[in-house]
Amino acid sequence: MYRDPVESLEPLHHRQAAIRTLRVGMIGIGTVGSGTFRVLARNRADIAARAGRSIELVMVAARNLERAAGIVGDSVALTADAMQVATHPDVDVVVEVAGGTGPARDWVLAAIAHGKHVVTANKALLAVHGAGIFAAAREKGVIVAYEGAVAVSIPIIKALREGLAANRIEWVAGIINGTTNFILSKMRDEGLDFAAALAQAQALGYAEADPSFDIEGIDAAHKLTLLAANAFGMPLRFADAQVEGITALQGMDVACAEQLGYRIKLLGVARRQAAGVELRVQPVLVPATHLMAQVNGSMNAVMVKSDAAGLTMYYGAGAGSEQTASAVIADLVDVARLDGVHAAQHVPHLGVHAHATNALAVLPRAAVHTSHYLRVPVHAVNQIQAVAASLAEQKVPVRQVALAAERPGMGPQVLVLTGPVEQGTLDLAVHALQARAEVAGAVTTLRVESLEG
Amino acid sequence: MYRDPVESLEPLHHRQAAIRTLRVGMIGIGTVGSGTFRVLARNRADIAARAGRSIELVMVAARNLERAAGIVGDSVALTADAMQVATHPDVDVVVEVAGGTGPARDWVLAAIAHGKHVVTANKALLAVHGAGIFAAAREKGVIVAYEGAVAVSIPIIKALREGLAANRIEWVAGIINGTTNFILSKMRDEGLDFAAALAQAQALGYAEADPSFDIEGIDAAHKLTLLAANAFGMPLRFADAQVEGITALQGMDVACAEQLGYRIKLLGVARRQAAGVELRVQPVLVPATHLMAQVNGSMNAVMVKSDAAGLTMYYGAGAGSEQTASAVIADLVDVARLDGVHAAQHVPHLGVHAHATNALAVLPRAAVHTSHYLRVPVHAVNQIQAVAASLAEQKVPVRQVALAAERPGMGPQVLVLTGPVEQGTLDLAVHALQARAEVAGAVTTLRVESLEG
Repeated sequence: MYRDPVESLEPLHHRQAAIRTLRVGMIGIGTVGSGTFRVLARNRADIAARAGRSIELVMVAARNLERAAGIVGDSVALTADAMQVATHPDVDVVVEVAGGTGPARDWVLAAIAHGKHVVTANKALLAVHGAGIFAAAREKGVIVAYEGAVAVSIPIIKALREGLAANRIEWVAGIINGTTNFILSKMRDEGLDFAAALAQAQALGYAEADPSFDIEGIDAAHKLTLLAANAFGMPLRFADAQVEGITALQGMDVACAEQLGYRIKLLGVARRQAAGVELRVQPVLVPATHLMAQVNGSMNAVMVKSDAAGLTMYYGAGAGSEQTASAVIADLVDVARLDGVHAAQHVPHLGVHAHATNALAVLPRAAVHTSHYLRVPVHAVNQIQAVAASLAEQKVPVRQVALAAERPGMGPQVLVLTGPVEQGTLDLAVHALQARAEVAGAVTTLRVESLEG
Repeated sequence: MYRDPVESLEPLHHRQAAIRTLRVGMIGIGTVGSGTFRVLARNRADIAARAGRSIELVMVAARNLERAAGIVGDSVALTADAMQVATHPDVDVVVEVAGGTGPARDWVLAAIAHGKHVVTANKALLAVHGAGIFAAAREKGVIVAYEGAVAVSIPIIKALREGLAANRIEWVAGIINGTTNFILSKMRDEGLDFAAALAQAQALGYAEADPSFDIEGIDAAHKLTLLAANAFGMPLRFADAQVEGITALQGMDVACAEQLGYRIKLLGVARRQAAGVELRVQPVLVPATHLMAQVNGSMNAVMVKSDAAGLTMYYGAGAGSEQTASAVIADLVDVARLDGVHAAQHVPHLGVHAHATNALAVLPRAAVHTSHYLRVPVHAVNQIQAVAASLAEQKVPVRQVALAAERPGMGPQVLVLTGPVEQGTLDLAVHALQARAEVAGAVTTLRVESLEG
């Protein structure tokens, strides 16, 4: 029963009668899918009271049908063919929680082509293929909702797209990968090196067997891409993001940051400059007293600086079965409330209406403008002045210089905090510094974010 | 040009053509009104790109027309008669930012009767008269939006009503009055007594000349009433809220709380129990390491515990001209997106559809169930055991007993932290304790909130 959009043109009393159960087809019944099933069932009455109609799971596609039946029982139709869910006439909205980007893209596009709304938590899919998917959805007048794609428990897409709609947003900075935040918290709390902290995260189920998407910053970059598009009304520019993970981070720098009054967090930062947008994921120093520095373990938080609202922050779990289900179902409630409404009045997929998209460019690495932390191994403690002088000569504003607290097996280390400077200038200065006789080893640099209003 | 709801039944191509500028009439052009005018003008293009249509201020009602003209220039019609804005055919939506509850109620009801949507930041109006106002709005199929009524810069109403729609919410706890949070921060940071901190807040413009609504907790209770209704789908029960301000709080207790590892915050707490809802505003002890304890100065934060999403927190400015404008305009964008849509598909005013309202009762004070802090003046330090024994006898679970650090001019003080206990049991125990010979003065009690998942 593919409902033509023309249905919404029927007289009011017909439409009112037509407000009926929203029928959900789900592709994938893993962690997120089973959580969604569970929460939909447990909170059925409350959800209907909010949505104004029932939301019912009618069909599930799964690779392992026996396992799926063990989860959903016999009230839900099961199929091994995801495309059947994507195109079935009894499905009003398709929830894609299978993950991956190849087949998932085909399913989502098929669902859209069949006039179905789509809810997905698939950040990789949207960050990479979102432009085509959203264009197809606009064409067909359907909604593609994806609150679960970023910082799952936190309604941050909604906050950017609706709650802060009055604002010109200046920057968004987020701890948006729970695995790396867990590892960084372990490194700090227990003085572990990266490898040991990763092993703990894997043992506790906070990191996958192949953790590369998390620890290389790619997962955070997918999410940042979606945040930036919603914040600035710009296209999805995942390919242009500068992405640095935490694999090269040394326990020594976590300790030295602490000594200077900072903590190291893997931040996704999207910041507007006059000439374009900084779009970058990297480990940075954050003042230890800052709220963002208090976000520990696998928790997520996103801070937004905007011209009218000022600084706002959003905090919650960044992963988990029911935590993601919370977002997926919130999207279903939105769909239930807007299904049948003229598509021009849907909240636009990326916050602004497509014709008004702001074709902002992503700035090159050299143009990124932040303060920096440097750790410079030297031969003798009295070479601290030489380090500072070398940087100042190269036009790097030096704000603080200190010797690192002694550590067994390490020679003297000069720690430097700079003022704001373009990355290009800093890179040249570090290159010059590295060549000096006083410098006894590789210079480490990390960005510093004040995250202030 | 009062547009009958029947207009939305026109064929699609007519409706598309009818999507035009949303015309705003504003009642009041004080701090919030002028901020709204300024942000609407400054971000005009961005806001239109998000809303899908222009949002234009066409008419303002002000007591001082000359002053108003100085703010809005000559592009906006001015009138001294608020009722004219509320009923004028050229106005699609009325923004009520004049404050007060008497005339504001008449204006809002008149606007609704004339088929206009309403946006207001007036928490007192809605907490007290919301039931009638929302019922009238449902009847006429118009929206009454009020994001600016609670923790202005933070889209917390939207988070509860939409973002967390999947969840059964267990509790909401908020620092939702900036004036009192500023005063409490001063008391802690500078060791001031309440009166001195209040004087500073007044001198700096963080407290009004008559600060009673803030410092007595009434403003926070208005906001808590709105949060609780949205969290639990319950009616507005302001009259049943237990409200305690910070006027009786002593600097000594701020210091003693600190000694035990806690900070004192004025929290609005709405918590579901089996038999009903706790709805209460009071100064409480919060663990010093908790995120909510880090919310300083005039900032606000709301923490929500829900069954699927878990703990989430929302942080931002709780007052200010453009900060409130951010919320008012977000509501206007929502109205712009939903204007003309069948009313049954609007997001319901209090989160759940009216027929599904949950008639939860507010629990009496005696049934409130929390941990407590007690400060007990005694004659001699060795009477610490007698205090603990007396409480245990009265069925109060004692978790920690300590002597307060000595302070000039103060006799010995026993500090007690209890486990969770009903307020009724605690009150009886304190009554018994107060009568004992060891007790040298009035026993002080404050609630303790762990704010844990």
